[in-house]
Amino acid sequence: MSFKRIDDRSNDQIRPTKITPNYSPYAEGSAFIEVGNTKVLCNATVEDKVPFFLRNKGQGWVTAEYAMLPRATHTRSNRETMRPSGRTMEIQRLIGRSLRTVVDLKALGERQIFIDCDVIQADGGTRTASITGAYVALALAVRKLMSNGVLKRSPILTEVAAISVGMIAKNPLLDLCYEEDSEADVDMNVVCTGDGNFIEIQGTAEQEPFNRDQMNAMLDLADKGIGQLFAIQRYAMNG
Amino acid sequence: MSFKRIDDRSNDQIRPTKITPNYSPYAEGSAFIEVGNTKVLCNATVEDKVPFFLRNKGQGWVTAEYAMLPRATHTRSNRETMRPSGRTMEIQRLIGRSLRTVVDLKALGERQIFIDCDVIQADGGTRTASITGAYVALALAVRKLMSNGVLKRSPILTEVAAISVGMIAKNPLLDLCYEEDSEADVDMNVVCTGDGNFIEIQGTAEQEPFNRDQMNAMLDLADKGIGQLFAIQRYAMNG
Amino acid sequence: MSFKRIDDRSNDQIRPTKITPNYSPYAEGSAFIEVGNTKVLCNATVEDKVPFFLRNKGQGWVTAEYAMLPRATHTRSNRETMRPSGRTMEIQRLIGRSLRTVVDLKALGERQIFIDCDVIQADGGTRTASITGAYVALALAVRKLMSNGVLKRSPILTEVAAISVGMIAKNPLLDLCYEEDSEADVDMNVVCTGDGNFIEIQGTAEQEPFNRDQMNAMLDLADKGIGQLFAIQRYAMNG
Amino acid sequence: MSFKRIDDRSNDQIRPTKITPNYSPYAEGSAFIEVGNTKVLCNATVEDKVPFFLRNKGQGWVTAEYAMLPRATHTRSNRETMRPSGRTMEIQRLIGRSLRTVVDLKALGERQIFIDCDVIQADGGTRTASITGAYVALALAVRKLMSNGVLKRSPILTEVAAISVGMIAKNPLLDLCYEEDSEADVDMNVVCTGDGNFIEIQGTAEQEPFNRDQMNAMLDLADKGIGQLFAIQRYAMNG
Amino acid sequence: MSFKRIDDRSNDQIRPTKITPNYSPYAEGSAFIEVGNTKVLCNATVEDKVPFFLRNKGQGWVTAEYAMLPRATHTRSNRETMRPSGRTMEIQRLIGRSLRTVVDLKALGERQIFIDCDVIQADGGTRTASITGAYVALALAVRKLMSNGVLKRSPILTEVAAISVGMIAKNPLLDLCYEEDSEADVDMNVVCTGDGNFIEIQGTAEQEPFNRDQMNAMLDLADKGIGQLFAIQRYAMNG
Amino acid sequence: MSFKRIDDRSNDQIRPTKITPNYSPYAEGSAFIEVGNTKVLCNATVEDKVPFFLRNKGQGWVTAEYAMLPRATHTRSNRETMRPSGRTMEIQRLIGRSLRTVVDLKALGERQIFIDCDVIQADGGTRTASITGAYVALALAVRKLMSNGVLKRSPILTEVAAISVGMIAKNPLLDLCYEEDSEADVDMNVVCTGDGNFIEIQGTAEQEPFNRDQMNAMLDLADKGIGQLFAIQRYAMNG
Repeated sequence: MSFKRIDDRSNDQIRPTKITPNYSPYAEGSAFIEVGNTKVLCNATVEDKVPFFLRNKGQGWVTAEYAMLPRATHTRSNRETMRPSGRTMEIQRLIGRSLRTVVDLKALGERQIFIDCDVIQADGGTRTASITGAYVALALAVRKLMSNGVLKRSPILTEVAAISVGMIAKNPLLDLCYEEDSEADVDMNVVCTGDGNFIEIQGTAEQEPFNRDQMNAMLDLADKGIGQLFAIQRYAMNG
Repeated sequence: MSFKRIDDRSNDQIRPTKITPNYSPYAEGSAFIEVGNTKVLCNATVEDKVPFFLRNKGQGWVTAEYAMLPRATHTRSNRETMRPSGRTMEIQRLIGRSLRTVVDLKALGERQIFIDCDVIQADGGTRTASITGAYVALALAVRKLMSNGVLKRSPILTEVAAISVGMIAKNPLLDLCYEEDSEADVDMNVVCTGDGNFIEIQGTAEQEPFNRDQMNAMLDLADKGIGQLFAIQRYAMNG
Repeated sequence: MSFKRIDDRSNDQIRPTKITPNYSPYAEGSAFIEVGNTKVLCNATVEDKVPFFLRNKGQGWVTAEYAMLPRATHTRSNRETMRPSGRTMEIQRLIGRSLRTVVDLKALGERQIFIDCDVIQADGGTRTASITGAYVALALAVRKLMSNGVLKRSPILTEVAAISVGMIAKNPLLDLCYEEDSEADVDMNVVCTGDGNFIEIQGTAEQEPFNRDQMNAMLDLADKGIGQLFAIQRYAMNG
Repeated sequence: MSFKRIDDRSNDQIRPTKITPNYSPYAEGSAFIEVGNTKVLCNATVEDKVPFFLRNKGQGWVTAEYAMLPRATHTRSNRETMRPSGRTMEIQRLIGRSLRTVVDLKALGERQIFIDCDVIQADGGTRTASITGAYVALALAVRKLMSNGVLKRSPILTEVAAISVGMIAKNPLLDLCYEEDSEADVDMNVVCTGDGNFIEIQGTAEQEPFNRDQMNAMLDLADKGIGQLFAIQRYAMNG
Repeated sequence: MSFKRIDDRSNDQIRPTKITPNYSPYAEGSAFIEVGNTKVLCNATVEDKVPFFLRNKGQGWVTAEYAMLPRATHTRSNRETMRPSGRTMEIQRLIGRSLRTVVDLKALGERQIFIDCDVIQADGGTRTASITGAYVALALAVRKLMSNGVLKRSPILTEVAAISVGMIAKNPLLDLCYEEDSEADVDMNVVCTGDGNFIEIQGTAEQEPFNRDQMNAMLDLADKGIGQLFAIQRYAMNG
Repeated sequence: MSFKRIDDRSNDQIRPTKITPNYSPYAEGSAFIEVGNTKVLCNATVEDKVPFFLRNKGQGWVTAEYAMLPRATHTRSNRETMRPSGRTMEIQRLIGRSLRTVVDLKALGERQIFIDCDVIQADGGTRTASITGAYVALALAVRKLMSNGVLKRSPILTEVAAISVGMIAKNPLLDLCYEEDSEADVDMNVVCTGDGNFIEIQGTAEQEPFNRDQMNAMLDLADKGIGQLFAIQRYAMNG
């Protein structure tokens, strides 16, 4: 009855996940996240200015960029030197939106926190690993602003983490690796707050449309996995 | 207890929706869809070649482009002459993916159907209106291929339609207009097949994260609205 | 002796022409012009700023953009997402220049009127139809500025309309449709003021160079056609 | 009664004009044209292939590019490194079209002649000087193809030359220099064949619309000037 | 008399340097090089095709791309999404040229080795570290081609490594870190073969022009440093 | 013993070199340099503003752009309309850097001198000819600023000139023409100050790595050639 996964995990098991805080000596906040063979370096930069459309509005901004090294993947992909691809833009918009939902932008003041998520190695789930790691880089940058006395209280309202779930051959699976992702019938990315509410749900039927029961089964798995990611984030932040 | 909507609709009521088939005399399939003040012209072009990555694989392709006239909106936005914005790319990828899921690409043969969705007027829900209209343009183009004897049987597996739902002040609402959309706490786009399964669910907390009950309430509304859209599509196709 | 035109018009006859004013609910001025099967939506946007090169010079500006929907034509043409083509730029420069010649830019004050001409359907003469329709959109926007009390008197000096003429097999013809245009020996676009003077004459020998007599015959036809366009514009403006 | 021109020419007098043939040692045809202070280097390149859209159609092509050195003018203008401006594209399309009208493209065979017109110094009339010089570069390249035995007979049907005329304070003037051009009410470029017919007429009212009599007066001047240019071309070709 | 360096090195001392071979599990050859705080990931990709200009010439090609993560540096720099900067292009051309000089391109056969040098952290000397690391990635990729039997003998003619030298306050210094580099009067990059000959010398007077004696002193230092780099490369290759 | 050069020069002989000052009537400083068949027009523009990164820093800037006419070479190369190539950027960075080293930017005041180097004809050594000519254009522009009273004393610290040297078949050669350059084993560009110090040395082994003795022999030749170029520059400046 049980589905045999390519890496022998049970259907509701996440990959070995590790977050190294303060990876970069230069960035204001930094986290290197490894989820199985997926590795993403998340660096937070604090800028004392806001984008043009927010000038003099008494609030800050959080934004993200996402990129992959050309040989992060099994075969080399070209650098996006002319313009980010549609996929890249979609991902960086998702990361930025997810982070902004947990930040009180007025409490941040007129400054921008810029998160760069650079995928060093890719084995599926790079966008969700980016969100999970980016939260740590963001939180460390905020901690620095507070220890420097720039901010009196944290503008972070709650935590955020993300994971993918999917369906293969009618089996709901947690945390798909690349090979699973490429043969899945459904692929769903779930972004949650620290208190278990949804920030984003993006479910796509790559092959087979899915019904309400299947969706609920996938959300149950996501719920479980994200709980574990919050524990890993807290350990990285606080040792 | 009931929420007062800006245009006096009940919470579970869609806007007046009309699809004019065969709008363009030149396109192989064409539909002009009006959803309240939102107006989208969907034109299907049949090309006897496939994109480079599909050459000699014995299958076809369906793709979409989406654009807004600069003054489709309350204030003018610049033409995307240098490159499509992230939002535009996200939308056209969604339209293309939704249509491909209901087409048997092998049965289509080595040809591409290109759907252009051009928003003439925008009052919220342009991406879902585009999908609903694009399906009609696609189906009319396929009907033409069959009446010309190019195709023996239809490669279309089922219908597809889409609608937005959202939450305002804890009220789940169906088919948001622009003003509702810009103040909603949650915005969710739902794409379904003719037999009621999901192709895409994209739910985003713009302000307030949402819980599982709220998501279920929104999906119930979507289900109801999409059923009505299928009836309107069928009427447009068959008179 | 008489030349048989493809649509049975006489040599000096324009196509059925109709201008629908106030087509768009959002634009400050709007006109939808249909000339035979050619359909152009002209929307005027009033902006309270001028281009950089005119800052603080005590005058306004009028400019235009022109584009075709990809499937406005018999075969699909690609969107100009990287940059407008040479043809597009030539046309939008012509439209802008023609409109500016009939506007007292100092009387307009430090504001810009931006005219978008979007070709929904193309059957020849799109640039001349754009000018004729753009004038109505411009005049309606100015009327609104006056009724709002922003302008005391109209900065519009005179009307402007445009038409194409050409030579086929030594016959001068008025208002060429697409099929005629593609086989014409000479193609000439004429832009005139309401009192019958020339703003632009652009005559091109596509096949056969032309002599002075032929040019005069073509200008006589243009003169006749433009007179009729002014009547149609006035009817659209004033009912 | 006579109008005092800035450089003391009479109204119907062209500027001192000189064409140096074979300026470049590398190009297949080359002409350096000086019209007053306007200096344009025209180089013709013969390529043994045609553009994509003409492959295997048994005909050739003639095309042109036009550019100005940044400091060809009184004040420096930026290089068009991102894309040619609308003005540049308009000019190079005009040059190419004018040359093609006098070439039998089938007789040219499946090859392309590429003319580069680079403005070294600009004092008005650069597009018309480019056409006049480009014809000489083209004719020299054809002569070389014939002397090499590649072509048996010349595909050139007739000569082509161009000149500008205009109106200042109701005076029709021939061959405007930059200062005249910038204050002219009307600016008209005329391109003619060796036997006196028109290939292009582009008349633009920069300030004051013009009437039929004024247009005729300008065309008479153009006729005179172009006759002199043909003599200068022939002298450059044949010594 | 001795100059006090910021990190207490002697003038002729290189920074701690370490090369980790086989860093990436996907690339055909991979090396992670750390030179003090400078960290560069070098991945080699073998492609069974050559660039267009080399088709059917019976030879291969080696090329390189170089990029920095946005927050590799003390302050964030923007991604080069529109096009590589002049500096980037200069560096990647240098890396590619240096590698090609030590490869027998005919012996490589009709394939391309593509080296990506991605700077994870930058503290001066990123281009020379890239060359030194790229050689190891290249050599490992070649070793793999040989162990797979694709190549019978190695097309690598000799080794290549690179280092920077400079002058500060008349002192010649070896292997400048970022702070030294930014105040140096002269900056010189030296690329050498395994047998001590020069492939490239690029010396630039940032402040003070330099004389022949100073150049010789810098080259003596480079010679010493590069000898040590060859030992480190060999250790990485062979353990 | 003696090497037979393609144009019969001795190994240590430069090509016939001529600098025409004040070539352009519009530029603030202008020089047309001919080195054998290589011809470069160098025009200096003085702008009363500095680039953004230097605003309000009390200093000026000198920068350069470099381009080739498409048919400056034996075969036509495309215009760089999308972006300058890596080679072009490398060259213009070199020219700008070389000129800035001999200018006291504070003494120049808050203005920029922009040098355009346009290659009219190319037969090798275009970058070194550009530097040598650009210096004269720069010096003439400075002379004009002094004669206008804008500058009291010259900000030029010393002269600058450049030349190429190389190795063919073990022979060190001075001032390579195109044919020599394309078969050279080593190509070295040397930029010197008027008092004989180095500003830049860029030596590249195109085929064969080179040793210290060969480098010294090439530098001796460069020294000799640059001395002659200084004499030619002074003659052009002072008659």
